Amino acid sequence: MNRPLHGGNLNWAATIAGCPVSALIDFSASINPLSTPQSAIAAVINSTSKLTAYPDPNYSQLRSHLAQHHQIDPEFILPGNGSAELLTWAARELAQQNFTYLITPAFSDYQRALNTFNGKIFACILDLCTGDSRIAPTPSPHLPIPLNPHPNSGLLLNNPHNPTGKLWTRQEILPYLERFDLVVIDEAFMDFLTPSEEQSLIAEVEKYPNLIILRSLTKFYAMPGLRIGYAIAHPDRLRRWQKWRDPWSVNTLAAAASIAAIQDKEFQQQTWEWLKPARSRLFQQLQSIPGLKPLKGTANYLLVQTQISATRLQEKLLTQHQIVIRDCISFPELGDRYFRIAVRLPTENDRLVEAMTNIIKTTDST
Amino acid sequence: MNRPLHGGNLNWAATIAGCPVSALIDFSASINPLSTPQSAIAAVINSTSKLTAYPDPNYSQLRSHLAQHHQIDPEFILPGNGSAELLTWAARELAQQNFTYLITPAFSDYQRALNTFNGKIFACILDLCTGDSRIAPTPSPHLPIPLNPHPNSGLLLNNPHNPTGKLWTRQEILPYLERFDLVVIDEAFMDFLTPSEEQSLIAEVEKYPNLIILRSLTKFYAMPGLRIGYAIAHPDRLRRWQKWRDPWSVNTLAAAASIAAIQDKEFQQQTWEWLKPARSRLFQQLQSIPGLKPLKGTANYLLVQTQISATRLQEKLLTQHQIVIRDCISFPELGDRYFRIAVRLPTENDRLVEAMTNIIKTTDST
Repeated sequence: MNRPLHGGNLNWAATIAGCPVSALIDFSASINPLSTPQSAIAAVINSTSKLTAYPDPNYSQLRSHLAQHHQIDPEFILPGNGSAELLTWAARELAQQNFTYLITPAFSDYQRALNTFNGKIFACILDLCTGDSRIAPTPSPHLPIPLNPHPNSGLLLNNPHNPTGKLWTRQEILPYLERFDLVVIDEAFMDFLTPSEEQSLIAEVEKYPNLIILRSLTKFYAMPGLRIGYAIAHPDRLRRWQKWRDPWSVNTLAAAASIAAIQDKEFQQQTWEWLKPARSRLFQQLQSIPGLKPLKGTANYLLVQTQISATRLQEKLLTQHQIVIRDCISFPELGDRYFRIAVRLPTENDRLVEAMTNIIKTTDST
Repeated sequence: MNRPLHGGNLNWAATIAGCPVSALIDFSASINPLSTPQSAIAAVINSTSKLTAYPDPNYSQLRSHLAQHHQIDPEFILPGNGSAELLTWAARELAQQNFTYLITPAFSDYQRALNTFNGKIFACILDLCTGDSRIAPTPSPHLPIPLNPHPNSGLLLNNPHNPTGKLWTRQEILPYLERFDLVVIDEAFMDFLTPSEEQSLIAEVEKYPNLIILRSLTKFYAMPGLRIGYAIAHPDRLRRWQKWRDPWSVNTLAAAASIAAIQDKEFQQQTWEWLKPARSRLFQQLQSIPGLKPLKGTANYLLVQTQISATRLQEKLLTQHQIVIRDCISFPELGDRYFRIAVRLPTENDRLVEAMTNIIKTTDST
């Protein structure tokens, strides 16, 4: 079986570990460990009687709830079969530009989507130690994108950034909306930040017709199996995408679960209360393991630099502990000296730390 | 609210009818009235605990079951988010040809998918009375596609044909596989024909790398809300499509329901036993209503020619009887003198016939 490009490929992991998928602890996919909210599961079960009908192609109810959630006009929202589906259509528009500026390392699905339409990437390398750019000039030392791009250029920005967890502020990003013809901001992990900390640009969409925001509901609400995301952008653009794609791209159960989930304020609160102390504790524990150096991150995952081979560590964690971590081989800039882990429940994080400590103690560091 | 392009838009219908969606009897979407098999519903409910994981991007288990069902190699199968998603990628390849030959009237989503990639359509008109072509020469009087197409042409064929229900035999279609560079056969309704009657070209896919078959599981198994279809074609082609689209296009619940459904031999038998006598009785009843002329069809729907306006009939059925039929306004060749109805359970069909009879009696025929 080929090494997977993405985290969360548990069939691959179970084969290596020699155990059933259910026995694995998955740190490779950055999914909320509180599990799918009961409210969403109940909505799925209550909606099975509706499967005999096609979904409403306008997704009016879902769009209206999302609009209320973000306090914007429903016309600015288009739900999709996971944000990955919407990325495909965003990439089609980016590919019409001369270049798409992209911070690397980047989520590998960006390359996939841009390749689909022969989009040209202009890579801007993120300095993993300081956040500095190797390309000047930048508006701040933190966002490594030039403010004077080639004419007819697009920008595809991931905020918070995957795999580093780096967060850029609204103020850092805003100047780019004036300088790039098209700006796509993937905010797949933004909801893991509390309302007072988040840096979403959703509120700018009505002002900037060249801005597209991509959001996911599958990470925060732990339902990647259901496939649900949405784009927030100018209605003309979203109508164009709707003509491109098939009419019923979001399944009925995902729509119902999403409506329930975004109203589940208790689940949201629990998630925010779990994440900050769990991430902080895990960060400190990783820092104390010789040879590992975690990067500060704002989302529900941490990128970790390692002196021993990440793929060797991954293999030993799998075969000896049934623990799955995300290697970074699919990020060419990172290779074998980095891995990414999701923040999970404190007891699970402790188990990972203990397993890693033992493996590293007994492994020579070359 | 705009008149919908497709059948099954029950929100639109409920607004016109002034009743809840649940009170409607839907003859507009051609969905099996036996409802989603219990085996599939049980699979959905049993799989809700798996929603926290991403779907297997290879869909190995689903592909293996589909392969067994059709007795072909799993490498020749690609599941999709409804066959409509796969149509988009098939249309991308058709659009690379100079022309796509298409029998009209045609399912309107073909035009949508070809438009997405600026594909050029060469329309071949189906004579609704005799099945004859107005374009010669054809290999038989029944398939109105020339055997000497323009160079570099594709063919997009719907078998059985929607909206007429016309079925072409394997022998009628086979010569076209030698004459067209790319042949896409949409067999969305083929499973409504019994194994001894069906005319699928699946068995030819291993021999013809220029052949793509699209299949749906949502019509026969009454689960259009779940979104599931699959393409059967050469593995090189399917790998290309997989690189184009997002990695997890089929949701976990649709995959689980499909595996259960295709193994449900009892449901399949019940469907075949219901359809033939129900369609035959409905056909005769419609024939006996003055001003209506149903066309012989092989699938689970009937196209009906009407002397009174189909949209007026549709409106009266909605407002007076909460019954939804499919107008044919979106088929330019049919317009207001045709409607399409699904074959439903005998008691429901009787209710439709009674309602139509009453409306037609009290309506002047202009």
